[in-house]
Amino acid sequence: SSRILLNIEDYHQAAKEKLSKMTYDYYRSGADDELTLQDNINAYQRIKLRPRVFVDVSHHGTNSDTCSVTLLNGQTTCSLPILIAPTAMHRLADDRGELSTARAAVRANTVMMLSSLSTTRLEDVAHEHQQALKEYPTSKSQLWFQLYIVKDREFTKRLVHRAEKAGFRALVLTVDACRFGNREADHRNGFRLPENMQLENLYDGDLKHAQSDHVSALNDFIARNLDASLTWSDIKWLRQITRLPIIVKGIMTSEDTQLAVEADVDGIIVSNHGARQVDTTLSTIEALPEVVAIVRGMQTKKKIDIYIDGGVRRGTDVLKAIALGADAVLIGRPVLWGLAVGGCQGVVDVFEVLKREFKLAVMLCGCASLPNNGKSSHLVAMPKSKL
Amino acid sequence: SSRILLNIEDYHQAAKEKLSKMTYDYYRSGADDELTLQDNINAYQRIKLRPRVFVDVSHHGTNSDTCSVTLLNGQTTCSLPILIAPTAMHRLADDRGELSTARAAVRANTVMMLSSLSTTRLEDVAHEHQQALKEYPTSKSQLWFQLYIVKDREFTKRLVHRAEKAGFRALVLTVDACRFGNREADHRNGFRLPENMQLENLYDGDLKHAQSDHVSALNDFIARNLDASLTWSDIKWLRQITRLPIIVKGIMTSEDTQLAVEADVDGIIVSNHGARQVDTTLSTIEALPEVVAIVRGMQTKKKIDIYIDGGVRRGTDVLKAIALGADAVLIGRPVLWGLAVGGCQGVVDVFEVLKREFKLAVMLCGCASLPNNGKSSHLVAMPKSKL
Amino acid sequence: SSRILLNIEDYHQAAKEKLSKMTYDYYRSGADDELTLQDNINAYQRIKLRPRVFVDVSHHGTNSDTCSVTLLNGQTTCSLPILIAPTAMHRLADDRGELSTARAAVRANTVMMLSSLSTTRLEDVAHEHQQALKEYPTSKSQLWFQLYIVKDREFTKRLVHRAEKAGFRALVLTVDACRFGNREADHRNGFRLPENMQLENLYDGDLKHAQSDHVSALNDFIARNLDASLTWSDIKWLRQITRLPIIVKGIMTSEDTQLAVEADVDGIIVSNHGARQVDTTLSTIEALPEVVAIVRGMQTKKKIDIYIDGGVRRGTDVLKAIALGADAVLIGRPVLWGLAVGGCQGVVDVFEVLKREFKLAVMLCGCASLPNNGKSSHLVAMPKSKL
Amino acid sequence: SSRILLNIEDYHQAAKEKLSKMTYDYYRSGADDELTLQDNINAYQRIKLRPRVFVDVSHHGTNSDTCSVTLLNGQTTCSLPILIAPTAMHRLADDRGELSTARAAVRANTVMMLSSLSTTRLEDVAHEHQQALKEYPTSKSQLWFQLYIVKDREFTKRLVHRAEKAGFRALVLTVDACRFGNREADHRNGFRLPENMQLENLYDGDLKHAQSDHVSALNDFIARNLDASLTWSDIKWLRQITRLPIIVKGIMTSEDTQLAVEADVDGIIVSNHGARQVDTTLSTIEALPEVVAIVRGMQTKKKIDIYIDGGVRRGTDVLKAIALGADAVLIGRPVLWGLAVGGCQGVVDVFEVLKREFKLAVMLCGCASLPNNGKSSHLVAMPKSKL
Ligand SMILES: Cc1cc2nc3c(=O)[nH]c(=O)nc-3n(C[C@H](O)[C@H](O)[C@H](O)COP(=O)(O)O)c2cc1C
Ligand SMILES: Cc1cc2nc3c(=O)[nH]c(=O)nc-3n(C[C@H](O)[C@H](O)[C@H](O)COP(=O)(O)O)c2cc1C
Ligand SMILES: Cc1cc2nc3c(=O)[nH]c(=O)nc-3n(C[C@H](O)[C@H](O)[C@H](O)COP(=O)(O)O)c2cc1C
Ligand SMILES: Cc1cc2nc3c(=O)[nH]c(=O)nc-3n(C[C@H](O)[C@H](O)[C@H](O)COP(=O)(O)O)c2cc1C
Repeated sequence: SSRILLNIEDYHQAAKEKLSKMTYDYYRSGADDELTLQDNINAYQRIKLRPRVFVDVSHHGTNSDTCSVTLLNGQTTCSLPILIAPTAMHRLADDRGELSTARAAVRANTVMMLSSLSTTRLEDVAHEHQQALKEYPTSKSQLWFQLYIVKDREFTKRLVHRAEKAGFRALVLTVDACRFGNREADHRNGFRLPENMQLENLYDGDLKHAQSDHVSALNDFIARNLDASLTWSDIKWLRQITRLPIIVKGIMTSEDTQLAVEADVDGIIVSNHGARQVDTTLSTIEALPEVVAIVRGMQTKKKIDIYIDGGVRRGTDVLKAIALGADAVLIGRPVLWGLAVGGCQGVVDVFEVLKREFKLAVMLCGCASLPNNGKSSHLVAMPKSKL
Repeated sequence: SSRILLNIEDYHQAAKEKLSKMTYDYYRSGADDELTLQDNINAYQRIKLRPRVFVDVSHHGTNSDTCSVTLLNGQTTCSLPILIAPTAMHRLADDRGELSTARAAVRANTVMMLSSLSTTRLEDVAHEHQQALKEYPTSKSQLWFQLYIVKDREFTKRLVHRAEKAGFRALVLTVDACRFGNREADHRNGFRLPENMQLENLYDGDLKHAQSDHVSALNDFIARNLDASLTWSDIKWLRQITRLPIIVKGIMTSEDTQLAVEADVDGIIVSNHGARQVDTTLSTIEALPEVVAIVRGMQTKKKIDIYIDGGVRRGTDVLKAIALGADAVLIGRPVLWGLAVGGCQGVVDVFEVLKREFKLAVMLCGCASLPNNGKSSHLVAMPKSKL
Repeated sequence: SSRILLNIEDYHQAAKEKLSKMTYDYYRSGADDELTLQDNINAYQRIKLRPRVFVDVSHHGTNSDTCSVTLLNGQTTCSLPILIAPTAMHRLADDRGELSTARAAVRANTVMMLSSLSTTRLEDVAHEHQQALKEYPTSKSQLWFQLYIVKDREFTKRLVHRAEKAGFRALVLTVDACRFGNREADHRNGFRLPENMQLENLYDGDLKHAQSDHVSALNDFIARNLDASLTWSDIKWLRQITRLPIIVKGIMTSEDTQLAVEADVDGIIVSNHGARQVDTTLSTIEALPEVVAIVRGMQTKKKIDIYIDGGVRRGTDVLKAIALGADAVLIGRPVLWGLAVGGCQGVVDVFEVLKREFKLAVMLCGCASLPNNGKSSHLVAMPKSKL
Repeated sequence: SSRILLNIEDYHQAAKEKLSKMTYDYYRSGADDELTLQDNINAYQRIKLRPRVFVDVSHHGTNSDTCSVTLLNGQTTCSLPILIAPTAMHRLADDRGELSTARAAVRANTVMMLSSLSTTRLEDVAHEHQQALKEYPTSKSQLWFQLYIVKDREFTKRLVHRAEKAGFRALVLTVDACRFGNREADHRNGFRLPENMQLENLYDGDLKHAQSDHVSALNDFIARNLDASLTWSDIKWLRQITRLPIIVKGIMTSEDTQLAVEADVDGIIVSNHGARQVDTTLSTIEALPEVVAIVRGMQTKKKIDIYIDGGVRRGTDVLKAIALGADAVLIGRPVLWGLAVGGCQGVVDVFEVLKREFKLAVMLCGCASLPNNGKSSHLVAMPKSKL
């Protein structure tokens, strides 16, 4: 219909109408009672902004670059501190699936993290991305590859080398998913991939029959193939087989932050996997401060990037995450809603919405520049931890 | 209908019935998810009164002056510590618009702050005000002019001089609106001024075509004309062009309070613009204490008035604000509801409701005099900040 | 109908069905938005019990006296620490009105506080009470008289002497009602006493036309006659005209507790008048600790009783109040519900319900004796004040 | 129907459909307003997990024993730290009643605590249990007997000796029920045992007519027979008549924990009797830490087991209880729901659900082994007590 889609929740509702219940639930749902799913969002609302006035913010209105961020020690630049989180199976939302998302990343001038569980071969996604970059030559968009280390190390190695060769610029190693969480909606719906889709990246050698035909098949596949014996020393193995920067995704504690820094990672993504793994964890934004405190408190040769995802739905959410020490945020479901609503253009539109909201928040809060310089503690008032 | 209107919420509901959805939403709405809009009200409810007994409060019953306040170092007196906040476009609620409000201010013996964005020329409002003062010669009502500094400084200067000449007695400089907030209801409704109305004060010279024909036109107009590069040093410029007292409206932090005092303002209005600019800021009543602490803690030649607006709906709210250190409160929407329900008389009625409630609260809490002497900390029990 | 009435809420609902809306609302309602009305109840629910086990509580099952309390330095004994709060106009609920209540007080072996605003002459109530005592000779029930000091001091004096002469054993001086609170339901209903009822105690001399014919008449009457200029020194005046013990009703702060003790009162009732006066005060049970701390911390010749009312609905509520330092609780509306449902018998039944619940709570919490010895702090876990 | 039952709440809803209202309410209900009933569940949800990553948890996927616990100083082993709480009258849910539950305990490889108030003779339950153990020889399931000490000590002694003789391996002495709590649903329903059922264990000698014919009969029976004069010294008496380990059930405070340890018990069950006794106690999981602190802080010759029940509904709940210091949890109502839905198989299924959820939580939280070694304080973030 001709309804105006003003905000991310509008895109969510519009997507809900377009998608089959099975797909919608797969995208939307979280673990168990979905308490953390809701709390990822609510926690942002509990954090209060302290807007400053009479600061010259006029340049934000005229100059489109004032909110861009430089990541991975200068390797990457995004027009906004908002990146695309890796999410599986984009073809469930849009015929062209990950191809549409990759093109949208170029147009939105941001990073797309491609899921290992994509329904399009990573080489095809990379190809589309390069085509789009030719059409939008000013874009600095990059592709990063989200990796699961599977038990078959040779397979993992081949996958990494394929990504490297295809032009992916960083590895996002997901560390919070040795099993899939208990997502009950998928069980009730008997979630399965349609006949004509596959987990294309895994369609190779021993993992030939990776494509799942219903939810337990998918879960079994994960249980059978993902390596639940990994420890921090396996980062070393990964370093040996690739020169790409390594970002670990799924850190929720100061303890693991310390181990990650000691393992010499290039970046940390504070994430609870969109509340899809364990229910009743902290919200991610509430976990962020302890991660920031460790990273910023340790001596490191290079700057280690801190990202966060989960529940970012408003421009003010982005501002809060930045002010609390994140270098950038990732969005997962909002991209899927955009994709479902309007394919590539829908994803671009979602970025436009967040860009408009974020820039307005930046101006109305009196931020001359992005408050990611570590001196922004007074911009946000964080609720005292109840824990 | 003949329904009795007992309290401000009754006026709100009655106004909702009378107004078009477009106008009602324009008046009612706040930024984004309207969390702060609700919290401005709820925060008052979380603050508890500690009523004292066996205090002689009999004079409040007989003497109508016992709750009057003196403001701006003696320049102004109001019969109650309740003033009219500047709100745009009163003709949407009532044919005579700002003229009705000005007359009501006289009858209620209070200050009216006229919005820059009024639908009546400031000169006409001043004229009506003077007429009414003649009819109600005991009233000490004043007009103050709410100012936006626009990029065209000459225009701003002319506007200030017009206000001065017309008899406005103070300038209320709004500092929290270099852009308009994201008020989604207006976007959905395609809010626009009717053909026969204009932003009359801005209908002059270069700003000729100021009148908006739909919401983005209005927002664009603001974005194009309001000066987002202002800093505290611009207060000096204003001082040079006028001798009127200057009150800054929109302070929410101790930091900005300090800068305001250093900029030698005459008064500070703790305000989040009725939650219309940034969502998820603190409620204003929760921000008040840090402002009071700074102002009262600094050495100043003159007394600097502290005002607060946002969410004042009950007599007990007024008492709480005063007890926490405000000199007076402002009401925005309640005036609009009164105007919509009964024009000038409706606004007078709204003041009667608040007067009755406020005086009753003062008596039942055992306040011999207004607790605005800085020693009232025990009258209210403020929730410990969760931040 | 034959519905079983198990608890106070059952009596409330049954009374609601029997009473006219006007009467029901008059009994039920509180000031303004009725937030404190609800909070008086909720605050009890936030307090947690810490039940102890393996304590010999067998005597509670066999001996009916184990929960009786001695009050006013031995003058009074009640079978339970639950007394009847003074409430106006019982004939609205039951034909025999205060006569039924007085008789029920005898049967329940408790104190009835008669309101100044009763619809039965105090002499008639006293007569009925004496009759009932003859029928139930083991009862130790007493009548206490609730007093408003009116401007006409001679009238007040006569009223006190009438009460004294009729056999009332203590004065309950209500100090929180120099005006009536803003009870909106009464305004909407145009609440008035029926033709055939009067405020009988006030039907005398200058107060002849005391009976109200609608709510503002009642409020005007209060405003005209109640003395809003009272201060603590007026207690001295009262002492001079009577030898009855004086209990002040309506204390909510440590400051006023101190003044009350200095004024040499015999008892203090922590009360917010059933949330009918000022909205958004503390709940009474949350105010109790600061009152207890002052009274128990001051040197006094005689023991000063501490009572509390407001929101007591369950046996566990009584236990909590006692454990936090109250000597007894008062119930207001529960008595009115009982009266409406079954007249005298209904009130007796209400006491039976609370007795059963209270005794069970005492046993299941492992209290060998009533925990009113000042050492019970560990029986209840009070939420940390959020204020 | 063919609905999938994924979690305990599903079993609850399915049981609700199958059971008569009278039985369902008897099983479901709690004391008074059932606030603690709800809070037992909610309190778990307020506790947050801090999942660790990159820990080798692969053995949990392959080895079925990794979550087993050893209890009572080595006497008992369960495949999971989840035991069957004693609940009355299983024949209301299933024809074979406690026989089905006993068989299920064997299949689930766990301990069943048989209620004194069972509808099957303890000897018959023991016999069925032995039969089942022959069919499932690898199971290490045990029966423990839940005891009420009744006034007739000789009867009590006989009951204990019968249990001992029948092969029960421990006594669970319930100390929080000298009376039954106020469960209003039972009163409204006129709850009574059907003609063909009895409290079989009590059908002996003087207690011949123990079977209740309606709820007050049952409560009267309890009041008449249970010994409300018990104190901690009666543990000595019990020790003299039996050599079985003694576990006290119903401890909620540090004070009673200390007394229990001094009385030389073998285990403590933190329990509020499924919120069926006193309403508005703490939730059990909030009481656990003070119990753990005392037990672990005292010098004891033998290890004293700490159990907890009330509100355990999810695998994550089990993990939280363990991490906070419990050796194992008990489940009450979930077993009854399973029994109602599918008899013995239903109970086995309920254990399968919790096993799946618990193991997943253990893996996804990065627990190489069960975090019951007293060093797990960082796995859970407990809300700061509001009390
Ligand atoms: C449908 C869906 C699929 C996902 N697939 C993956 C995945 O394959 N790999 C991964 O590391 N994270 C995956 N995630 C987690 C996201 O990367 C991200 O952490 C999460 O979606 C952020 O929360 P948000 O959706 O609230 O923005 C997935 C999330 C969703 C919703
Ligand atoms: C419809 C509307 C228009 C407003 N227009 C202006 C304005 O032109 N200038 C300004 O400084 N504030 C404006 N405000 C903010 C008010 O001055 C005031 O801060 C706010 O309304 C107080 O909150 P309340 O409405 O809850 O009382 C407006 C508010 C409303 C509701
Ligand atoms: C209908 C009604 C009439 C009352 N009238 C009086 C009164 O005449 N004098 C007085 O001191 N308190 C009066 N009260 C207050 C009660 O004494 C008592 O403080 C209050 O009812 C206790 O709260 P509860 O109703 O929640 O138990 C009245 C309360 C009600 C509900
Ligand atoms: C229907 C029912 C009957 C119970 N009967 C007994 C009993 O006979 N003896 C006992 O010690 N506890 C009894 N309990 C309490 C349980 O042992 C246990 O403490 C409680 O059910 C745990 O809470 P949960 O049901 O939330 O898991 C009973 C509980 C229920 C729900």
